[in-house]
Amino acid sequence: MNFEFQNPTRIIFGAGNLSRLGEAAREFGTRALLVTGGGSVKRNGVFDRAVSSLKAAGITVAECEGIEPNPRITSVARGAATVRKEKCDIIIALGGGSVMDASKVISAAALYDGDPWDMINHGQDKVYVPKQALPVITVPTLAATGSETNCGAVITNEDAKVKSFIQIPLLYPKVAVVDPELTVTVPKDQTAYGVCDLITHVTEAYFNGIDTTPVQDRFAEGVILTAMQWGPKAIADGSDIEARAQVQWSAIVALNGWVQAGTNGAYPVHMMEHTVSAYHDVTHAAGLSIINPAWMRFAAKTNTGKFVQFAERVFGLPAKSADDLDCALEGIDRFEAFLRSIGCPTRFSELGIDGELFETYARDTLKIVRDENGNLPGRPPMSVEDMLGVFRSAL
Amino acid sequence: MNFEFQNPTRIIFGAGNLSRLGEAAREFGTRALLVTGGGSVKRNGVFDRAVSSLKAAGITVAECEGIEPNPRITSVARGAATVRKEKCDIIIALGGGSVMDASKVISAAALYDGDPWDMINHGQDKVYVPKQALPVITVPTLAATGSETNCGAVITNEDAKVKSFIQIPLLYPKVAVVDPELTVTVPKDQTAYGVCDLITHVTEAYFNGIDTTPVQDRFAEGVILTAMQWGPKAIADGSDIEARAQVQWSAIVALNGWVQAGTNGAYPVHMMEHTVSAYHDVTHAAGLSIINPAWMRFAAKTNTGKFVQFAERVFGLPAKSADDLDCALEGIDRFEAFLRSIGCPTRFSELGIDGELFETYARDTLKIVRDENGNLPGRPPMSVEDMLGVFRSAL
Repeated sequence: MNFEFQNPTRIIFGAGNLSRLGEAAREFGTRALLVTGGGSVKRNGVFDRAVSSLKAAGITVAECEGIEPNPRITSVARGAATVRKEKCDIIIALGGGSVMDASKVISAAALYDGDPWDMINHGQDKVYVPKQALPVITVPTLAATGSETNCGAVITNEDAKVKSFIQIPLLYPKVAVVDPELTVTVPKDQTAYGVCDLITHVTEAYFNGIDTTPVQDRFAEGVILTAMQWGPKAIADGSDIEARAQVQWSAIVALNGWVQAGTNGAYPVHMMEHTVSAYHDVTHAAGLSIINPAWMRFAAKTNTGKFVQFAERVFGLPAKSADDLDCALEGIDRFEAFLRSIGCPTRFSELGIDGELFETYARDTLKIVRDENGNLPGRPPMSVEDMLGVFRSAL
Repeated sequence: MNFEFQNPTRIIFGAGNLSRLGEAAREFGTRALLVTGGGSVKRNGVFDRAVSSLKAAGITVAECEGIEPNPRITSVARGAATVRKEKCDIIIALGGGSVMDASKVISAAALYDGDPWDMINHGQDKVYVPKQALPVITVPTLAATGSETNCGAVITNEDAKVKSFIQIPLLYPKVAVVDPELTVTVPKDQTAYGVCDLITHVTEAYFNGIDTTPVQDRFAEGVILTAMQWGPKAIADGSDIEARAQVQWSAIVALNGWVQAGTNGAYPVHMMEHTVSAYHDVTHAAGLSIINPAWMRFAAKTNTGKFVQFAERVFGLPAKSADDLDCALEGIDRFEAFLRSIGCPTRFSELGIDGELFETYARDTLKIVRDENGNLPGRPPMSVEDMLGVFRSAL
């Protein structure tokens, strides 16, 4: 283990905390760009409550609405233009992962004269690394991505059919105002996708990291067990604020670095999914739910011991030995069954995706990230053929 | 769950990182006060290597040596005087918990004209809360207190026979340079005490917090399981750098807030131990090792379910029901047996402490902290009689 860790985001967590948004924001600015998505926050009154809290703190509000579920670089550019026009000095993200991701990139793009797509790793020779950004405050309305307390963002270029990421410490939000009450109106399917998303964040580093991270392994298993316990309750009764809070806290710790610290893990399932949803505009976690179990069966053949540990500790399965592949595969079956039980798809056909573009996804994935041998980083690294095998097994 | 969390400390973790101290410090200052303890770092060469790294980065070094195992407020005052005299602009703690704790308080005391004891909560009517402090960098040479990445400090007033604390966000270290190689010379007994210390940090919030923290429960159990797995290896072979690293990382996460976030836990075992070691100058964790199992048996009578969970998840014991007191007590026996197996004392008599001052400890503890009913906060709150019962059961 040799690593660095720093996450400076202040978390204000708990039901009813939306009313504290203005107070939290006032420390960083007086002219806010309020970023939102498809309009649910306007229909359910959350937008008005946020604006009230901001105005009561003496903060004026400009708007950037209509951020897409897979946020587009054109929307980032639009938000940045509004920031400049309205002379905003703080960005407030009120929405799900897409709104928060777009807000982070807007915060840097507003202070950059070039094309914001320069900042997103998409296989270009030289990625532009921004040196300054406006302060961002996140107010998540969905428990899923954990974007509220990390420094990553995933952005889509719809013309190029590329979905890729930026992840730099500059983009840590200053404050995350996390109010589980804001998630009670999230429909069952999106709640389930959030559970799948947060679990997949944890499984990536767990299965693709180095071997010597016993604390991180326990943390990862703890997040998965908690999400599997409380997720179904939040799906069954959206108004169960206790279940909503547990799922939301699980989503935060699943990707704020506490679980991943020192693991040096890769994210092959995410990389493959990003390429798929760049073509099909499917919900990110629906793609993850299909690809992750299929990838697990592929990876379990070489990294068997870790999958045996997963089967033992998460599902309580007995292993005959530390490399009991049958036990490992039984654990993956149980995991896939859990995903199905909460309503997530596990086959591409359920999303109406046939195999026609599988090779395109695989080759596009390698355009974004590849190791020195030209393979997708992970345990094990994946060739185009490996990816095709995983995709086909999930058809 | 309704809470705030922010830990801004940058962690540089891994064997060999002492050489990066100068580079890390240079960002914050050019004239360092280097704080050390009893001299082991001078005998084993770590001090010289730290000074070399600092000088190579253009940083001049003044010294404050001789911080006691239970650091005294007089030493804090001495360090603060050196800071003023030498015009230091950064404090570097090179040592164990006592050196780090003293350094944090020196960082605020150097900028305060009054008596630094004013800052320590010791039952006074009005605690002075410092508003400014010099930057602190911690370089732990012992895996135990977790002080390297938190904002707390425990200081003793030897005249008043009071050992108490300060805990304010201002005192978060800027950077923790954590190099497990620095711990390979720690003797077996101090290594074992470190393991006991870190586990006790975790059990306090686990058993004294609110009920609705399933993620935090899993994190706590994960730290305990990891410490119980790797601690004995580090004790058996001090040069096992892998075991040293796992114990040190466990100690960090045991008290950097990741495990405690949202638990709203009290620290009754720590509060009682502080009073004992204020009178006897025993190693903090030796006192904890005696008091914690005794306290657990007291608390298990009312908070049985949590102790059953502990017995099940940490020791794999079968419970007949969620309130199976026999199972709960068996888990505590197993925990106490673990402490004995690594060489920690579990009876006051092993430290040469008789029962003569038990009532004094109990009454002194309540002078530092008490709830609205005059009891020691915890689950359950403790009267003087309750504390006496715990002390006597550990005689």
